[in-house]
Amino acid sequence: MNKYSFLDDYSEGCHPNILKALASTNMVQQTAYGNDEYSEQAKTQIREHFDKPDIPIYFVGGGTLANIIIIASALRPHEAIISADIGHIVVRETGAIEATGHKIITVPPVDGKVTPENIEIALANNAHYPHMAKPRLVYISNATEVGTVYTKSELQALSKLCKKNELLLLVDGARLGAALTADINDLSLNDMAEFADIFWIGGTKVGALMGEAIVIPNKKLAEDLSFHIKQRGALLAKGRLLGLQFSELFKDDLFFELSKHANLMANKLSVAISDCGYTLSAQTESNQVFPILPNNVIDKLQKKFDFYIWKKHDDQHSVLRLCTSWATDEAQIDDFIHSMNKWSSAEK
Amino acid sequence: MNKYSFLDDYSEGCHPNILKALASTNMVQQTAYGNDEYSEQAKTQIREHFDKPDIPIYFVGGGTLANIIIIASALRPHEAIISADIGHIVVRETGAIEATGHKIITVPPVDGKVTPENIEIALANNAHYPHMAKPRLVYISNATEVGTVYTKSELQALSKLCKKNELLLLVDGARLGAALTADINDLSLNDMAEFADIFWIGGTKVGALMGEAIVIPNKKLAEDLSFHIKQRGALLAKGRLLGLQFSELFKDDLFFELSKHANLMANKLSVAISDCGYTLSAQTESNQVFPILPNNVIDKLQKKFDFYIWKKHDDQHSVLRLCTSWATDEAQIDDFIHSMNKWSSAEK
Amino acid sequence: MNKYSFLDDYSEGCHPNILKALASTNMVQQTAYGNDEYSEQAKTQIREHFDKPDIPIYFVGGGTLANIIIIASALRPHEAIISADIGHIVVRETGAIEATGHKIITVPPVDGKVTPENIEIALANNAHYPHMAKPRLVYISNATEVGTVYTKSELQALSKLCKKNELLLLVDGARLGAALTADINDLSLNDMAEFADIFWIGGTKVGALMGEAIVIPNKKLAEDLSFHIKQRGALLAKGRLLGLQFSELFKDDLFFELSKHANLMANKLSVAISDCGYTLSAQTESNQVFPILPNNVIDKLQKKFDFYIWKKHDDQHSVLRLCTSWATDEAQIDDFIHSMNKWSSAEK
Amino acid sequence: MNKYSFLDDYSEGCHPNILKALASTNMVQQTAYGNDEYSEQAKTQIREHFDKPDIPIYFVGGGTLANIIIIASALRPHEAIISADIGHIVVRETGAIEATGHKIITVPPVDGKVTPENIEIALANNAHYPHMAKPRLVYISNATEVGTVYTKSELQALSKLCKKNELLLLVDGARLGAALTADINDLSLNDMAEFADIFWIGGTKVGALMGEAIVIPNKKLAEDLSFHIKQRGALLAKGRLLGLQFSELFKDDLFFELSKHANLMANKLSVAISDCGYTLSAQTESNQVFPILPNNVIDKLQKKFDFYIWKKHDDQHSVLRLCTSWATDEAQIDDFIHSMNKWSSAEK
Repeated sequence: MNKYSFLDDYSEGCHPNILKALASTNMVQQTAYGNDEYSEQAKTQIREHFDKPDIPIYFVGGGTLANIIIIASALRPHEAIISADIGHIVVRETGAIEATGHKIITVPPVDGKVTPENIEIALANNAHYPHMAKPRLVYISNATEVGTVYTKSELQALSKLCKKNELLLLVDGARLGAALTADINDLSLNDMAEFADIFWIGGTKVGALMGEAIVIPNKKLAEDLSFHIKQRGALLAKGRLLGLQFSELFKDDLFFELSKHANLMANKLSVAISDCGYTLSAQTESNQVFPILPNNVIDKLQKKFDFYIWKKHDDQHSVLRLCTSWATDEAQIDDFIHSMNKWSSAEK
Repeated sequence: MNKYSFLDDYSEGCHPNILKALASTNMVQQTAYGNDEYSEQAKTQIREHFDKPDIPIYFVGGGTLANIIIIASALRPHEAIISADIGHIVVRETGAIEATGHKIITVPPVDGKVTPENIEIALANNAHYPHMAKPRLVYISNATEVGTVYTKSELQALSKLCKKNELLLLVDGARLGAALTADINDLSLNDMAEFADIFWIGGTKVGALMGEAIVIPNKKLAEDLSFHIKQRGALLAKGRLLGLQFSELFKDDLFFELSKHANLMANKLSVAISDCGYTLSAQTESNQVFPILPNNVIDKLQKKFDFYIWKKHDDQHSVLRLCTSWATDEAQIDDFIHSMNKWSSAEK
Repeated sequence: MNKYSFLDDYSEGCHPNILKALASTNMVQQTAYGNDEYSEQAKTQIREHFDKPDIPIYFVGGGTLANIIIIASALRPHEAIISADIGHIVVRETGAIEATGHKIITVPPVDGKVTPENIEIALANNAHYPHMAKPRLVYISNATEVGTVYTKSELQALSKLCKKNELLLLVDGARLGAALTADINDLSLNDMAEFADIFWIGGTKVGALMGEAIVIPNKKLAEDLSFHIKQRGALLAKGRLLGLQFSELFKDDLFFELSKHANLMANKLSVAISDCGYTLSAQTESNQVFPILPNNVIDKLQKKFDFYIWKKHDDQHSVLRLCTSWATDEAQIDDFIHSMNKWSSAEK
Repeated sequence: MNKYSFLDDYSEGCHPNILKALASTNMVQQTAYGNDEYSEQAKTQIREHFDKPDIPIYFVGGGTLANIIIIASALRPHEAIISADIGHIVVRETGAIEATGHKIITVPPVDGKVTPENIEIALANNAHYPHMAKPRLVYISNATEVGTVYTKSELQALSKLCKKNELLLLVDGARLGAALTADINDLSLNDMAEFADIFWIGGTKVGALMGEAIVIPNKKLAEDLSFHIKQRGALLAKGRLLGLQFSELFKDDLFFELSKHANLMANKLSVAISDCGYTLSAQTESNQVFPILPNNVIDKLQKKFDFYIWKKHDDQHSVLRLCTSWATDEAQIDDFIHSMNKWSSAEK
């Protein structure tokens, strides 16, 4: 691979602090299955962000596992999920949620987000008792699939509607770091715990080798969760691997710094693209940039860089996705901008 | 219940021939679990409609059971179904299909039908291997949820597309009787077996107390099906109850005559509604009529008749659903028409 | 079929009263999906047997459906069932319970029954949290698979142990009629509701064409049950078929009379077999008889009668299962006894 | 933790070579989801052990995930597994297999192993078509749960029986390293591929942080497996983590050397225990030792060492499990032996 990749935020290994911690603790014997000291310590560090001192926290190895475990443990068989039709559980998890037996009712997103209005429509359309699965959980992602982030008032409104309708609110936080450090963000981790019944903090996309932290403000949902983690194959024998990583990420706010870097790099790209006279198909709010570029410029950029061609815009233009991360090298951002500017003026 | 009901096609018991057969055979001992003489005989009678003399046939007690058994036995866990978003399995079976672990990919219907174009779009949108469930089966209903029926060329086109893309074609025939006896129909039972991999013939809505016949032209899908029927709770100890009913329905074309009666009654209603100056929100092709009537006329009709108010049309009008059946009393149809005409002229 | 069958208790159709009721109500229009007058009436009749006047009751078409619906709606995914290893859900339902995602922990039966001691052993052996599925429901059948019946003190002891250990108690009542009318029985329907959290009253084996009544003393288990009935394909469009049958069975204690007849016939067989000098491999407590006969006598009996050869006893003898029912013809019992006596003396 | 632990073989981190490899490749960008160079290289290295050069290999993060994915992808819903009643999937995976919908039929183990005789009995006892789930896959572990290992002739006999009865043979290889380097072992990795339809090579217990390699001699079982890996949440974004570890383990036979070390340490313990006059409750064939010691000696040993008290032997004695690993410090073994000898003579 000689081209620099903006394909995703998990192309590199992990933050060097994690490697150091793995090395320094390597031969220390620890109790298995998440009952190790590092996992305990990581939980303590994360809990410092919350008003509730004993908020339940569990670590699992990946996002799909987190979603499977949370949803399958929270719902009875006749209960359904409401999600945006672009939701990760809808289109990127190979039917993992349906494989646990649950229907997903989809709603159209607005700027990538689920809105109270669309939830209400979904509730109205799925009320033919008992012929329809019963809506019971609302699934959102923050940041969303298109990189937008929820504001405090938006999340509060969703939370209020959910409580009123006895719906659980689950936030997929694969890119929660990017969301909470976005320029327009006004949410804290503690706010997440106030508004969501359950949510998870993604580690994989913020410098961990793997791992997500499930946080459960609604304690009822934590009941017997360990059984579900084991049943779904997510109980690592060496749980220390997860604990250690989160302990490093939540030391000295590393998690937030790495997230900020990703956003900063995306923003730099985004501004430069606008300055170069191009438009964006979505606001750049976190670490994903969706510019509309001419195909001949794209062709040239592809010789030096890897990125997704998201969709066709018109006969001469396409939408790209450029994803930045904790590991993005600013020199490569500069090179991309320089190349884009050069080839764009050549085209004009 | 003093009002006459046009709510559905299962408000009465069963055709009198079935009651007679139940009585005359009642104390004859029979082998259990569908291995009785009547079931065997019913299969023979149904098979006379097919060129393939040994086409596998199984009886189950209801439509949702038929769909559960067919889909769960035909698919591997990662395989998905394509259905119209109004499909019965999508919105009227309480997530029964997802409860077997399978995702349903929905497409917008055209006149209530699934089209080859929309299947192709669904295939293109669900091709991100291995992050998306793999489309493997197309589910359609004939007649459709809105009472329209597939023509031979339409079904042939679907079948061709399915074969090309290694998709199985399942036809839900809850109202197959109404479809195959519709005025515009040009399909035979034998055609169904040519185009579909598996389909079922609804008895419940054509004069049986309960029961559907699953017919399996693609014999691979019949492999071990009895296990699935048992596992899903559909293997009746007294399978004779299903066999006997289908034997009566397929004696002297009773099944088709009863279906025709339902269509005829719907047509009479439909013509009278048009004659009265009202429009229909959908073509009346089988035994469901969807007229748009003024709300004040509806209010009066509701005093004498039961029917669904399907949806609001505008501030003064609503769409009704009037469902006729094998048991519909023509005198009641006449009364409905008479009442409608009377109250309509009173309004003008 | 010229041989008289003692194979099972569902070889005939239904009690004539049911046929009469079906005929006399046939063309009366009724609301679908169990909201008909006959279902309501049947529930009222059954409720007269209970102290709790509003005990929830639901009708479904078969025993496997009843077990699937009850268990899948009552348990969370990590919860397991404890059952005798001969339990119907263990060895006669094609993995239907596992197909809903739940493990069955088996215990050895004592006289066909689950004992408190064996439950306690199972609890102790399945306590390795969270590596083992969590026992949450005890499944028993009354009468058991081998025809024995639970006494009041036995059921009470099970109930007490279950409550103490937060286990739900489910009684499969496929042959509850036979159990509650057994000579040694001291349980009433009302006792069943005191000791069990949920149980079902079998109709199929006591003269119905099909149908079981689920009774739910522990009301929490009734929450949203209709969704589960629909999701598992058990919500009959013509629910009247189930209501009407149970209404007939619970009119003038017909249900109990039919059950008594079955037991009486079994007892007559059992006594005659003992009188003829043969032993029984299990006590005859309800409507199943398990005699040990010489193979040459069996060979001759098989020319006139159908029955199961349950297992080999020794080189010259086998255990038979003779099953009587509401429909058993006493003349055939007499003929069997006569034949047995005749061929037995010929052998001596 | 000041006591030295013989609790399990996953108390430490990973072999130092793995840490070095992680560090040296850390910032190299790689394609996600297992399509990285290290995974490719690891597969090539593993394939060198097989005659079939293109044998399909997949990496997943844990043993329960491996078993879930293999079984759920290989079986249709009505198909069942045969396993020893002590099988890991039976008693240590929280019902994970049943959660995928499949029944496990248990057989009594002989020396921890499944025998052809017991499979044949299970087949005979589960043949009541279609009322019983259909046996389709035999699950064994090598080494077994009690540390014994299969010989070539034993595995061959199982394989032959499976082929004859159209049963798939799955070998859980959580401790395959220990098995294949056991003194009495006469099986090679290539033999495994000849006899098993599918098996997996455990990394977690042989010095990896996590990870197992699924090897699929019966190629039909590899069809669409990636979908299942993703659906069950096992497709790591940073698949490099798995690839890199197996690449290190299969460089210069490190995997086998580490396994041998574990066995050697167990053997040293085992011999010393016998020399000290104690008996073993099971032969020490791999890296688990099950000695029967006096309780007062055990009490003293527990002050310095951690280990499982497996079960009570008699009032004065208990069976211990001592588990050694790739990381076991021989000095600690010596200390254990010394302590045991000292306290044993003190008792005498």
